[in-house]
Amino acid sequence: MTHDMKILTETELRQVVHLDLAAVDCIEKAFGLLSTGKVVMPPVLSMALKDANAEVDVKTAYVPGFDGFAIKVSPGFFDNPSIGLPSLNGLMILFSAKTGLVEAMFLDNGYLTDVRTAAAGAVAARQLAPKVVKTAGVMGTGVQARLQLQAAHLVRPFDKALVWGRDPDKAKAAATDLTKSLGVPVEAVEDPERLVSLSQLVVTTTPATEPILSADWLHPGLHITAMGSDQEGKNEIDPNALRRSDLVVCDRIAQCELLGELRSALAAGAVQDQSSVVELGDVVSGKHPGRRGDDDITVCDLTGTGVQDTAIATYVRRRLAGTDTGTTLSV
Amino acid sequence: MTHDMKILTETELRQVVHLDLAAVDCIEKAFGLLSTGKVVMPPVLSMALKDANAEVDVKTAYVPGFDGFAIKVSPGFFDNPSIGLPSLNGLMILFSAKTGLVEAMFLDNGYLTDVRTAAAGAVAARQLAPKVVKTAGVMGTGVQARLQLQAAHLVRPFDKALVWGRDPDKAKAAATDLTKSLGVPVEAVEDPERLVSLSQLVVTTTPATEPILSADWLHPGLHITAMGSDQEGKNEIDPNALRRSDLVVCDRIAQCELLGELRSALAAGAVQDQSSVVELGDVVSGKHPGRRGDDDITVCDLTGTGVQDTAIATYVRRRLAGTDTGTTLSV
Repeated sequence: MTHDMKILTETELRQVVHLDLAAVDCIEKAFGLLSTGKVVMPPVLSMALKDANAEVDVKTAYVPGFDGFAIKVSPGFFDNPSIGLPSLNGLMILFSAKTGLVEAMFLDNGYLTDVRTAAAGAVAARQLAPKVVKTAGVMGTGVQARLQLQAAHLVRPFDKALVWGRDPDKAKAAATDLTKSLGVPVEAVEDPERLVSLSQLVVTTTPATEPILSADWLHPGLHITAMGSDQEGKNEIDPNALRRSDLVVCDRIAQCELLGELRSALAAGAVQDQSSVVELGDVVSGKHPGRRGDDDITVCDLTGTGVQDTAIATYVRRRLAGTDTGTTLSV
Repeated sequence: MTHDMKILTETELRQVVHLDLAAVDCIEKAFGLLSTGKVVMPPVLSMALKDANAEVDVKTAYVPGFDGFAIKVSPGFFDNPSIGLPSLNGLMILFSAKTGLVEAMFLDNGYLTDVRTAAAGAVAARQLAPKVVKTAGVMGTGVQARLQLQAAHLVRPFDKALVWGRDPDKAKAAATDLTKSLGVPVEAVEDPERLVSLSQLVVTTTPATEPILSADWLHPGLHITAMGSDQEGKNEIDPNALRRSDLVVCDRIAQCELLGELRSALAAGAVQDQSSVVELGDVVSGKHPGRRGDDDITVCDLTGTGVQDTAIATYVRRRLAGTDTGTTLSV
């Protein structure tokens, strides 16, 4: 018995899926389901290839209530730029959660990961940032710096934004791009303290291994989302900032204590144990309150989870229903 | 920059790849490379979905010297037969070992796994069975019972074969099929002791959880390949048979001590420790001698490895070169 499967290239996927409120809602729903405790999310399969200066990661998660589950393969081949290829590739395969049959293959080269990662930032902002954000700040100047600010603007339509980066020229370029795409003034700043003190919402998006945001800069009514750390050894936020916050939220505590800001804060003794930390899904589902007042200081530590991959892949499939985008194969 | 990838269905794969000496040579080469110690083979990613009565396994291996590596996804959805679908599905994705770019997707529904599993049986027989095998025996009556006997015949062209199964009717059906496909007489027997005593080469292919082959039946000049056990709890061979053998060989010791006949033999104290056990790759590469004389008794414990998946997937790609089989996509 044959069935149809869809194959989409990155170009096709960029036409079908955008970073918008529907994508954010989809990721928020997945975090809420993570809170039910019924999600099956095995540890990442990781294969380091020293000979090839490469690494291959495989992530997956089964989310009851979603009709499919994704397996994401992310190869990073770090010598590729020397032959004119990008370092990062990758794809997602979507399987039926009822039969295990393959339903679709998304050759996204990491695009869907970019979208689901930024969407998690929007979920964090919606759940944790003050109701009114006049100014938002982003630290970092790469793809996620741009996407995180767009994501934040969907849920907290700020009037103005600030960008800081180690390279001032890159910060200026990002500010120019974002002014156009967001339709509000975005300014590059050279002093990160000024960025934090003027913002009600700050997103950090760097691969820093030493803190770039000092605890001394915290002020009442600030929310910080830290999404750069996703490996042991990375650290963007001064551990004391987590101690001084009213609420510390993780996408997945078991993962953040190994790979995220929580890891650095635990190592520094700034957070005594995980019992004071809350999962984002528990805030989404209402199991735990989020921000309790306008003056609270909140921090959200995002490391990226397999449930987001399964959520975005099933979202793509729904967006495809009734269209002829992509290649259909009878298999 | 786009590149081409190939997609093949099970039907197309069955036209391209067969269980023949070329496939056996390819798998044997992979075992030899496993012996170099440079293969990267992470533990299986396994996701049990109790809600769906299902399990999903992901295997991979990077084999230096092979120009690609495979990631194999094997979903088992055990309620599928109630809606007219097979329980087992699955696919392999082939990536370039130089760039990480996806090169091919083989929607094989387990066919390539069947071939690479049987080919490993042929490697074991070629390395370990007596030079002359007049009669071969197989225990079990399923797909692997048929394929293992075909594989053995490629390297030890026996004159006659015997089949035993718990269900005599299935054994007769297998004997009829195999008589046709092998071109030599294949007889169903009801007494497994008779099968072992008359054979120089025996392959066990069952999901047994209690031994079906007694140590009392061993005789000089016998080689046994046990390929049924691939999970904790399975056991085909009397642990004492491993004690009484002159040589015990595993496809991968670290895996067999968890999932194979070695597990049962260690648990029963019949094998004291792993130091007396040899890996198949070390016999292929010549690091360790195989059978030393016509009267030796040898046992090979096969649990199935990711290197076989990478080997068969790169073999398929070589077989495809210059053909227009499959669907080519520019991605």
